[in-house]
Amino acid sequence: MIKSLAVAMLMLVAMPSVCEAKAPKADFVPGKDLTLIGKLMPTPERYVRVDTVKYDGFTDYQRRRLNLESAGLALVFNTNSDRILVNMDYKRKHHAYNGTDVASAGCDLYIKRDGKWMYAGSGLPSDKGEPITLVSNMAPGEKECLLYLPLRSEVGEVYVGVEPGSKITAAPNPFKHKIVFWGSSFTHGVSANRAGMAYPLQFQRSTGLDVRSLGVSGNSKLQQSYAKVLADTEADAFVFDAFSNPQAPEIRENFDAFLKTLRAKHPTTPIIFQQTIYRGSRNFDTKNDKTEAAKMAAAEEVVRNAMKTDPNIYIVYPAADTDGSTCTDKTHPSDMGYYNWMMSIRQPILDILAKYNITAQ
Amino acid sequence: MIKSLAVAMLMLVAMPSVCEAKAPKADFVPGKDLTLIGKLMPTPERYVRVDTVKYDGFTDYQRRRLNLESAGLALVFNTNSDRILVNMDYKRKHHAYNGTDVASAGCDLYIKRDGKWMYAGSGLPSDKGEPITLVSNMAPGEKECLLYLPLRSEVGEVYVGVEPGSKITAAPNPFKHKIVFWGSSFTHGVSANRAGMAYPLQFQRSTGLDVRSLGVSGNSKLQQSYAKVLADTEADAFVFDAFSNPQAPEIRENFDAFLKTLRAKHPTTPIIFQQTIYRGSRNFDTKNDKTEAAKMAAAEEVVRNAMKTDPNIYIVYPAADTDGSTCTDKTHPSDMGYYNWMMSIRQPILDILAKYNITAQ
Repeated sequence: MIKSLAVAMLMLVAMPSVCEAKAPKADFVPGKDLTLIGKLMPTPERYVRVDTVKYDGFTDYQRRRLNLESAGLALVFNTNSDRILVNMDYKRKHHAYNGTDVASAGCDLYIKRDGKWMYAGSGLPSDKGEPITLVSNMAPGEKECLLYLPLRSEVGEVYVGVEPGSKITAAPNPFKHKIVFWGSSFTHGVSANRAGMAYPLQFQRSTGLDVRSLGVSGNSKLQQSYAKVLADTEADAFVFDAFSNPQAPEIRENFDAFLKTLRAKHPTTPIIFQQTIYRGSRNFDTKNDKTEAAKMAAAEEVVRNAMKTDPNIYIVYPAADTDGSTCTDKTHPSDMGYYNWMMSIRQPILDILAKYNITAQ
Repeated sequence: MIKSLAVAMLMLVAMPSVCEAKAPKADFVPGKDLTLIGKLMPTPERYVRVDTVKYDGFTDYQRRRLNLESAGLALVFNTNSDRILVNMDYKRKHHAYNGTDVASAGCDLYIKRDGKWMYAGSGLPSDKGEPITLVSNMAPGEKECLLYLPLRSEVGEVYVGVEPGSKITAAPNPFKHKIVFWGSSFTHGVSANRAGMAYPLQFQRSTGLDVRSLGVSGNSKLQQSYAKVLADTEADAFVFDAFSNPQAPEIRENFDAFLKTLRAKHPTTPIIFQQTIYRGSRNFDTKNDKTEAAKMAAAEEVVRNAMKTDPNIYIVYPAADTDGSTCTDKTHPSDMGYYNWMMSIRQPILDILAKYNITAQ
């Protein structure tokens, strides 16, 4: 379908740009007219990951902020435009000291070439509300596009700009099977340089699997609140980063109940637990080194114990680094760490999923 | 020498911290009492890289801002403290949309272990002027420390905090031979996650060579102004990223005069030119792809031409990536790109330097 652009054009008129010479008039299409992927479930608000009204037990921070961030969501569309711009209507524009604004509040565009998702451009709409040109001067022809939304901001609407008169249409979801990730700031993508470098999204592009990722920075502690959300989520497989936030006692205390809630609605769905990663702080902080080692031991213990009676539970071992070399802030990996993470779990997870005939091929 | 801490203690009293529970009283030593490395030349202001008053020809932006940033500078010291904090007196605290504040305005600490510089901690003093704890709970013993200063901010003074009663002393420069880097935002470290991940500083730690790096974001265009600065700089070798900022015509126009100015004072010093890197924008922007290819062709031409008559000129080929996968913002590499860059030039440069008996071993 070719979209009516009247509303978006009005919006452009209302947003005079100092970059007009660089980015002349474009037609803007609202994201609601394109295909949104990456959601765990339907929600009243389009660009949030969890229906915060429906579920009990969230803290205010989780309900009013963390669950509302657009990490993991993406628009897919086809266009024959030779350039692609983006603008955002933010409900909240996030800034983090340990990440780029491009990742926290910007967009990250990929275009398919020879069957592979190639980086096409990333950037941040200006504080004045001016759109950013993600890519221009493209060769003629139809492009299949994947546009990741910000990792940490709350999005009211996203507007995709194209050359006036060109076509832009909603595309079918290019990814297959529902692989539901849940986890800490690591899964959220904190300290990634651009949205698509969060490791679940690298995994998505690399495998072709339909990743739906719920990263909840600092709040992935095997709670019943998130267990209920995940239990209600359609999934062909679960991949959890569940041992990065809780301390060892919390892991032992919460694990069985978390699993029980999930298994009540997903009795045989494969659940792949990820061990937490080595943190840069462990290099010299002997206390932190012990705390982290205790978390890892507890994680290993509870998962191995569950595996004795549940044949559909697995554990994999992500590796960002072993010496803090990919660390941003003592804790969070850089893009390099998240790339290493993705590469270290990619084949082990694909091998597990293959047992269930889950393959993107 | 054990430093008198009276002034710094007064400063601490003047800066009450809301983090006091986490970071109890520490003794703060000003950077002026420790060893500063990485400077190209003496300057009236301690934490700047170029004497902006002495040289003609700078633009206002270069003179009043770019040349004043502390990229590439580091303090070296020994301490037996079990924790290390840092605070900053900023003349200007920089924020960039395409980089982390940890890199732009924070510090990055390494400690030597088994002959290798290990990551120890990185972070950003608070907006309220509170210090940040870079590392704590360290095992007893003397630590050899390397503390990189912010990549993009202007530093009045930096204060290193240690456990009250512990020793902190200026250390000798651990690096050997003066290897002078000059270049664009890439050499400056734009989009690196922490200061020490700028590729010249990765090279410094990896090789043990005394890198003095002058990255001038967007302003490395083979200008006479910088040629004069570099000509006045003591150097055992030069490594230039001189083809990332200028367009092809500028490269052809400026190169010979740049080289002539430098050679007038450094007739036989090895000069290693780096080709510019592949940019993510080239994946789909056909115009940019041509512009960048033209820059690369011009660079290759002028360097190869100079090599015909000057036996001490070289060219090396950094590779951040070949598909934009390490790109932050269509142009600047992430830590992953800068790591790839460093690894791709490390051995070629070491091989060249070996001809001049320049080795850190």
